[in-house]
Amino acid sequence: MTTPHHLSYVLRLADNALILGQRNSEWCSHGPALEEDIALANISLDLIGQARLLYSHAATLDEQLNGKKKTEDDYAYFRNEREFANYTMVELPHFGPLAGTARAARDYAVTIVRNFLYSALMVRVWEALAASADDHLAAIAAKSIKETRYHLHHASDWLIRLGDGTEESHRRAQAALDYLMPYAREFFSVDAVEQAVAAQGIAPLTSEFEAAWREEVAATLEEATLEAPAEVQHVSTGKHGEHSEHMGYLLAEMQSLARQHPGATW
Amino acid sequence: MTTPHHLSYVLRLADNALILGQRNSEWCSHGPALEEDIALANISLDLIGQARLLYSHAATLDEQLNGKKKTEDDYAYFRNEREFANYTMVELPHFGPLAGTARAARDYAVTIVRNFLYSALMVRVWEALAASADDHLAAIAAKSIKETRYHLHHASDWLIRLGDGTEESHRRAQAALDYLMPYAREFFSVDAVEQAVAAQGIAPLTSEFEAAWREEVAATLEEATLEAPAEVQHVSTGKHGEHSEHMGYLLAEMQSLARQHPGATW
Repeated sequence: MTTPHHLSYVLRLADNALILGQRNSEWCSHGPALEEDIALANISLDLIGQARLLYSHAATLDEQLNGKKKTEDDYAYFRNEREFANYTMVELPHFGPLAGTARAARDYAVTIVRNFLYSALMVRVWEALAASADDHLAAIAAKSIKETRYHLHHASDWLIRLGDGTEESHRRAQAALDYLMPYAREFFSVDAVEQAVAAQGIAPLTSEFEAAWREEVAATLEEATLEAPAEVQHVSTGKHGEHSEHMGYLLAEMQSLARQHPGATW
Repeated sequence: MTTPHHLSYVLRLADNALILGQRNSEWCSHGPALEEDIALANISLDLIGQARLLYSHAATLDEQLNGKKKTEDDYAYFRNEREFANYTMVELPHFGPLAGTARAARDYAVTIVRNFLYSALMVRVWEALAASADDHLAAIAAKSIKETRYHLHHASDWLIRLGDGTEESHRRAQAALDYLMPYAREFFSVDAVEQAVAAQGIAPLTSEFEAAWREEVAATLEEATLEAPAEVQHVSTGKHGEHSEHMGYLLAEMQSLARQHPGATW
């Protein structure tokens, strides 16, 4: 039987993919080289494609629960900030911790570190979801594993190249890591939604991956000559709809055209 | 034997693909629907991919002529405005003719009409180039035909949907057509470069396609209930490096990151 927690969980997965896809797409045609431009655009397209599949599945669950048929665009373009349930990490801008006071430039190190931390988690999540009691979700997971393995491979390669590169690139990569790593705590905090779907065999508890994730991250950081920052106590709360100050701007950009022409043919 | 005209011709093809790919990528994650976002991003990636292949080929010709090895990024990021030889049409912003005085919104009708007019040309150009005396160029053409047929199909579908849609969408599509159509004259103006490569069997004279192109365009416009504007005398000159006032901004956006870190690892 479909439960509200089941729907909430699928929407969390979808929102993470959409918001990170949206952030990464800000590099479209502004990458540091033509080849990299294309690689990053493809990663964005994979993420937005994952979001579309997940929103379509959410629409089916939503109809079973509430009797009303929604579309993927309803979720992406016509929900408010508090209704988005992505991790705070994926909504942060590319400006990074080294940004000055003026309108800051995007920092590629932030992009890469985030893709690395998130993909390292999602490879494990998708692998577990491929055995979900929700067959439709299992099928989406099977497709997404391959994409996410490539994203992790791409980010790891770059992280090593940056960390073990020039003095400047090392400094930026370390600063990006110090900035982003604390937000990873949110990946592993357990709440009622995750407990419910775990009990139903729909999804794994990410907390079970935490040790393996930290080990894998540590191994790549060592190769990149980077150091994980000290642990913090604060846990970000994006997945409960409480977002950073950056989320509103991101949604305004993403939603404005669709909201100007609701239900229009373009 | 490689000639400067041969190199110039390949760079024109590359610049058209890159600049239109760059323009279309401005829609990344700002499309009117998730599905359309992905379609347009894929079209951008095809165009940037074509540009990469053409720049790599240009680098080979350049080395034969000048003995100096360049990379695709040298052409994309380290040439000045006067050195770009794309048609003026592809560099124009998406703001369109209906833009107000304030910072104008992108108009999807402009995007679609331009993709339609350009792709209708390029399907024919790539078909002819598939039989080029330049084997490498012929191979790039064979790959590009399929992509460009899809771009034309996508743009034609949308053009009919917009032209034969609501009153508002019809008005915008007609305005975009009135705005862009005059720039198509540049497609068919013959100059020394095109005469030289045609004489060598490297490329067709686009002027030979003009009648067939006009006929094909007219057929789709009729289905879209749109009317071609009256002919003008002016011929734009982007392919000779004389660009509109919009080109400088586009290049500044595209080239800034690479120029900040010339030869860097990122």
